Amino acid sequence: MARWEPNARERLVRAAVDLFSEQGYDATTVTEIAERAGLTKTTFFRHFPDKREVLFAGQEAIGRLLADGAAGAPRDATPVEAVGAALDAAAAMFTPAQREFGPLLREVIAANSELRERAALKSESFLEAMTEALRERGVPDTAAAVAAGLGALAFGRAFARWTEPDCARSFPDLARAELRDLHAAAAALT
Amino acid sequence: MARWEPNARERLVRAAVDLFSEQGYDATTVTEIAERAGLTKTTFFRHFPDKREVLFAGQEAIGRLLADGAAGAPRDATPVEAVGAALDAAAAMFTPAQREFGPLLREVIAANSELRERAALKSESFLEAMTEALRERGVPDTAAAVAAGLGALAFGRAFARWTEPDCARSFPDLARAELRDLHAAAAALT
Repeated sequence: MARWEPNARERLVRAAVDLFSEQGYDATTVTEIAERAGLTKTTFFRHFPDKREVLFAGQEAIGRLLADGAAGAPRDATPVEAVGAALDAAAAMFTPAQREFGPLLREVIAANSELRERAALKSESFLEAMTEALRERGVPDTAAAVAAGLGALAFGRAFARWTEPDCARSFPDLARAELRDLHAAAAALT
Repeated sequence: MARWEPNARERLVRAAVDLFSEQGYDATTVTEIAERAGLTKTTFFRHFPDKREVLFAGQEAIGRLLADGAAGAPRDATPVEAVGAALDAAAAMFTPAQREFGPLLREVIAANSELRERAALKSESFLEAMTEALRERGVPDTAAAVAAGLGALAFGRAFARWTEPDCARSFPDLARAELRDLHAAAAALT
């Protein structure tokens, strides 16, 4: 029987980000990550399929939260309001602990093309999750694409600001502010 | 001295897409691609660093064309008009020959997560190229993000329609129509 390891998942993520940052992603092995976290390789593989997924596993949940948030918005919410609800829902993933190593995580991803590709596909999946959720609310296809596009931009821009070393604002606050500004800019384009 | 091989690049792309489609991306080797194209492995590596880049090498040029197209729009063009000029410029890459194996290429990419990741990063780089070109035109940051975002959506949607097996319209025609519709939807969001 596997022994219960408190916070194993968080410890593995923390250890992986630290090691990737210290010695590079390619040079780091699963064994080293497990050792740094004070856990076994077996425990590692109970949580993640490989070392790359340590950085992205949490993002599956974000796509679901975005979709559920948009779906759960009041029936009379506009498409952009539904996108705002999606961003609020996803904010649950952006804990102070995550905020703390966000800048490190960003650096690690930026330094490795394989990780940047993976991150880009994840971003694309957030856009798709929101577009689909809006369509299911009865929003016409083109409007759903535009509103979800604003949401994806707001998400990315808010995340970039939130992980700046000196940022004091919360993720939902930043995401809402970005969505408001982008929406205003979209209106002013015409 | 290397022997001149007419259309080597196009023949390699064609052979690679056919083989990936027939037997899968993972099962296909560079040697097989070169053989199918009637060329040597050495010729392959003179054109591409690896088998994956056969599918994406042309896309470097698209980013440059988008940026140059936006930069070259008339000085009094609106941000969305500059994005339209960017899409027109990129259309140079979408030849009838490319149109022909577009559906095959799409299938090959869709079937492989590594290729989907690579494609997502390329799409992201198109968005960045357009955003940066608009900023350099003096478009404020948020407006540049929104207009480029509409351009990236138009690009992706036009490409998807253009590579439908029964599509008879040209890429620039589709891209312009998508941009017009997305722009109208953005205006109607408010």
